[in-house]
Amino acid sequence: MTQAIQNDRLIRAAFRQPVDRPPVWMMRQAGRYLPEYRAVRKQTDFLTLCKTPDLAAEVSLQPLDILGVDAVIMFSDILIPVEAMGMHLELTEGKGPVFDTPIRTEEQIDKLIIPDPTEKTPYALDTIRLLRKQINNAVPLIGFAGAPFTLASYMVEGGTSKNFAELKKMMYSAPSLLHKLLDKLAEVITIYLNAKIEAGAQAIQLFDTWAGELSPQAYAEFALPYEQKVFAGLKRTGIPTIMYINGCGNVLEQMATTGADVLSIDWRIDIGDARRRLDAAGFGNLALQGNLDPCILLGSKETIATSVQEILGKAGGVGHIMNLGHGILPQVPVENAKAFIDTVKNLV
Amino acid sequence: MTQAIQNDRLIRAAFRQPVDRPPVWMMRQAGRYLPEYRAVRKQTDFLTLCKTPDLAAEVSLQPLDILGVDAVIMFSDILIPVEAMGMHLELTEGKGPVFDTPIRTEEQIDKLIIPDPTEKTPYALDTIRLLRKQINNAVPLIGFAGAPFTLASYMVEGGTSKNFAELKKMMYSAPSLLHKLLDKLAEVITIYLNAKIEAGAQAIQLFDTWAGELSPQAYAEFALPYEQKVFAGLKRTGIPTIMYINGCGNVLEQMATTGADVLSIDWRIDIGDARRRLDAAGFGNLALQGNLDPCILLGSKETIATSVQEILGKAGGVGHIMNLGHGILPQVPVENAKAFIDTVKNLV
Repeated sequence: MTQAIQNDRLIRAAFRQPVDRPPVWMMRQAGRYLPEYRAVRKQTDFLTLCKTPDLAAEVSLQPLDILGVDAVIMFSDILIPVEAMGMHLELTEGKGPVFDTPIRTEEQIDKLIIPDPTEKTPYALDTIRLLRKQINNAVPLIGFAGAPFTLASYMVEGGTSKNFAELKKMMYSAPSLLHKLLDKLAEVITIYLNAKIEAGAQAIQLFDTWAGELSPQAYAEFALPYEQKVFAGLKRTGIPTIMYINGCGNVLEQMATTGADVLSIDWRIDIGDARRRLDAAGFGNLALQGNLDPCILLGSKETIATSVQEILGKAGGVGHIMNLGHGILPQVPVENAKAFIDTVKNLV
Repeated sequence: MTQAIQNDRLIRAAFRQPVDRPPVWMMRQAGRYLPEYRAVRKQTDFLTLCKTPDLAAEVSLQPLDILGVDAVIMFSDILIPVEAMGMHLELTEGKGPVFDTPIRTEEQIDKLIIPDPTEKTPYALDTIRLLRKQINNAVPLIGFAGAPFTLASYMVEGGTSKNFAELKKMMYSAPSLLHKLLDKLAEVITIYLNAKIEAGAQAIQLFDTWAGELSPQAYAEFALPYEQKVFAGLKRTGIPTIMYINGCGNVLEQMATTGADVLSIDWRIDIGDARRRLDAAGFGNLALQGNLDPCILLGSKETIATSVQEILGKAGGVGHIMNLGHGILPQVPVENAKAFIDTVKNLV
């Protein structure tokens, strides 16, 4: 028998059901801005932290205890399933990931395996099970993954990139090769997320962080179909799904067709405009998440409060999950993160 | 007496007059993708090249001779007038600019001077005069400058930036300080561009490259008013003005109020949508420039031709200057740049 979640605002908002106030959490809320997180990281490297359920669960819970957010997101990295496909990953927090042998040939793509999560990434599922026990249904637990396009960008570039020149070179000179990689990734991510749901994830967020770097035509060909494939493959009765793209403004209406219940938008688009555009295009059933500029948390508490209130007003109260437009920055003072959360919570 | 420009397609397109085909040029067309440019750069460092009229004119003319573009843009850097304000600039091509003492206090802003271009940056004006002689009115000569917001981003960050955290910290905690800097920059840039016009520039492009990183609210407060101030201050009878923002999609209608004749848009927005939005908002009088993804020039010649034709079709022939959505990348093969130019030129 499933136990009810005590604070289920996030689930209700995702399905556009009434809430006393919008739920609030922050992307990358278990992160370096918290001294408690940095203390755990002193004991271990980043990848080991991802792969050690006790520690991953500990840092996942920190924002719930310290800031009182309305949801816990499991601590991990989007490249964990890519490593499990057989790529050698080096992950240094702050420096970004490095794949020493980037994908450039069909032979390399053929060699990548479709990992069984219970066998290749059991720690991710163990972290979820442990977190579900520890949270004890106080708030929902979010599981996540990177979308095929964004994962492919790291695999082809060999790490982070400014222009995505290698990826786009493949896109515009050997598109069928990239499609082959994206299709394989869609299968891997679908299996991976279904394993997370089975382990106990109560909401799912898919990050296509870099899809906003594409022209609308390229988004339609290389990102959207694979986002759709992942969402279509999820066994997710009652589990809300959230789609995030950084720089989504030019593809918002396309993004609305991914199959996600919630669109998580960045700060460059006015959330009132986003709501109006979705309603006008027949997507009034979708909820929105976001969209404070993470850099506003570097400003004064007055600016934080005013900016949060402006977003809440424009989003309209129903079908809105308050969040940042991208991950929280390491240099944010904890008291400013708290001011962000508290502004929303003080509404009731 | 002013001599007529033989190939005046760019001027005509900017003012939405009929042309036999759209004009075409490329942002950063005098650059590292050309072996002839690299040969000149071997003789000298980047800043010296900017400050030596003979050499700056030589590399400015290379794309006209080699590719047959419809306009020459004078070779320079947007940070040249900032250095003249009294900041110590180190500029290593490929690594990006470095200001070793970033602007953080009112005292520093007060110390910055309003340079007289004839006294502090005479080489920029000499380059224009020399180029006008050498071009001999075959095509128009474009002069350019960075917009106050983008220049301030380098001055406050101390160089290039991923998140613009320092700049936004100032924006959201000490906005009046940033406004003081932006206002001073608007004055400097207006004087600088007027000197370029007087020296012979026949079109002006203003680059607010990083303004697309702002929320629409922040753009309205920290970028737009200073773009407007610059355009309002230009003595520019008959000289078309072009406004460029990378990531302009969410602020296009605001950008239309800057006072520029042409909006230069990046590749993330569909140019047909941009045209429709401008027409619907009452800006049917403005022309568009762009907007091929520069990375498409890393692809096959067939993809280049197809993509160019798609943009030309959507832009509609009148009031369109064909260009990239951002600067050409150093790794582009010259024959691909030529394929881009030739696809447009083969229309007649």
